[in-house]
Amino acid sequence: MDTAQLVALNAAYARAIDNEQYERWPELFHDPCFYKVTTADNVARGYEAGIIYADSRGMLEDRVSALRKANIYERQRYRHIVGLPVVLGMADGTAEVETPFLIVRIMRDGQMDVFATGCYRDKVRPDATGAPRFAERIAVCDGGRFDTLVAIPF
Amino acid sequence: MDTAQLVALNAAYARAIDNEQYERWPELFHDPCFYKVTTADNVARGYEAGIIYADSRGMLEDRVSALRKANIYERQRYRHIVGLPVVLGMADGTAEVETPFLIVRIMRDGQMDVFATGCYRDKVRPDATGAPRFAERIAVCDGGRFDTLVAIPF
Amino acid sequence: MDTAQLVALNAAYARAIDNEQYERWPELFHDPCFYKVTTADNVARGYEAGIIYADSRGMLEDRVSALRKANIYERQRYRHIVGLPVVLGMADGTAEVETPFLIVRIMRDGQMDVFATGCYRDKVRPDATGAPRFAERIAVCDGGRFDTLVAIPF
Repeated sequence: MDTAQLVALNAAYARAIDNEQYERWPELFHDPCFYKVTTADNVARGYEAGIIYADSRGMLEDRVSALRKANIYERQRYRHIVGLPVVLGMADGTAEVETPFLIVRIMRDGQMDVFATGCYRDKVRPDATGAPRFAERIAVCDGGRFDTLVAIPF
Repeated sequence: MDTAQLVALNAAYARAIDNEQYERWPELFHDPCFYKVTTADNVARGYEAGIIYADSRGMLEDRVSALRKANIYERQRYRHIVGLPVVLGMADGTAEVETPFLIVRIMRDGQMDVFATGCYRDKVRPDATGAPRFAERIAVCDGGRFDTLVAIPF
Repeated sequence: MDTAQLVALNAAYARAIDNEQYERWPELFHDPCFYKVTTADNVARGYEAGIIYADSRGMLEDRVSALRKANIYERQRYRHIVGLPVVLGMADGTAEVETPFLIVRIMRDGQMDVFATGCYRDKVRPDATGAPRFAERIAVCDGGRFDTLVAIPF
């Protein structure tokens, strides 16, 4: 697994969400998996609980269903700008990676704000076909505006 | 045409605009070409018209001239942060690519805001010398502050 | 020195600062070195002075010490989103590189703003072990909120 593959995986991840092709998002994970959205403050304090949590593709798919219903009411769009991945280590075919992100939220009236910034802490390994997939993705937010009805995937 | 070349093309594009070397911007296109700035809303509604439109290098150069004159009055700067390109397909030597972008506007007094975010939808193929150039670039904005006298290239 | 190495160097730089592992920051420079934070306005006017200046690892380390003391009072976090590097030339084993950046500041209450945008103008060459290090890094800010007690490295 090289940097080019990690870059492609991250680009596909951002594109699925920003193009509102949410159904493609769970496909980028292994099953079972570990997905969590938390904050740097919570991590620093040793809190295990996250804002969002899933440990299977089924749970990720449930989130997509909830999002599709909520989206009838909330019409904001999001734009992920994903930074450069740093490979911290490689063990048993699994890469440990950190990748910074910035998410801009675009309201229906065109108003934009920085919705969240942070760092993805990932474990990535290939699936049976050789395609790299997330065994684990923890989105550690520096801060954020967690005021939406049902949050998009981070 | 590989990802490294697409990254280099996008970096050169952003640099030409942000360093105010606008004359280098048309050189990154084929002639004829197709360049359009539009919004995600317009695309979703099937509207063909764009905020900015050009189908030749000559039209792009006209825009640069207009910008040079307008800049006597407007002194803001811009900064493009271009994300990771996703190659969607390759046909007849032309790559179809999507690349997210974020543009920050810096006013004369140092005030900054997110000016626009969106996604470039590109068709890229090499010119006679082998250098990759845009046959087509459609900047689809998620939203934006389209209030400047003469917009910079997106 | 190839683009992948420059990307890795920039990612390590951003990570050291954003993860508040400031002690790793001077290690990314040669000794002696040249580090300066300035503004596009100052560069355009030919002003040599910078907001921050250092010409040795020792000076960079002093800045880290000052930052560690100031951080008792100021608890904001930062997030660097580093763009795609453009290699402008290569001479005597030293690469001349420009890389755009965007820094978001996250206040203690979760409020976020665009803290600075700009372009790194770098000279990069390998150290004795072959690892690429900054011989020179000039952070040219488009604008910025330079109101902190002791600024983080840009």
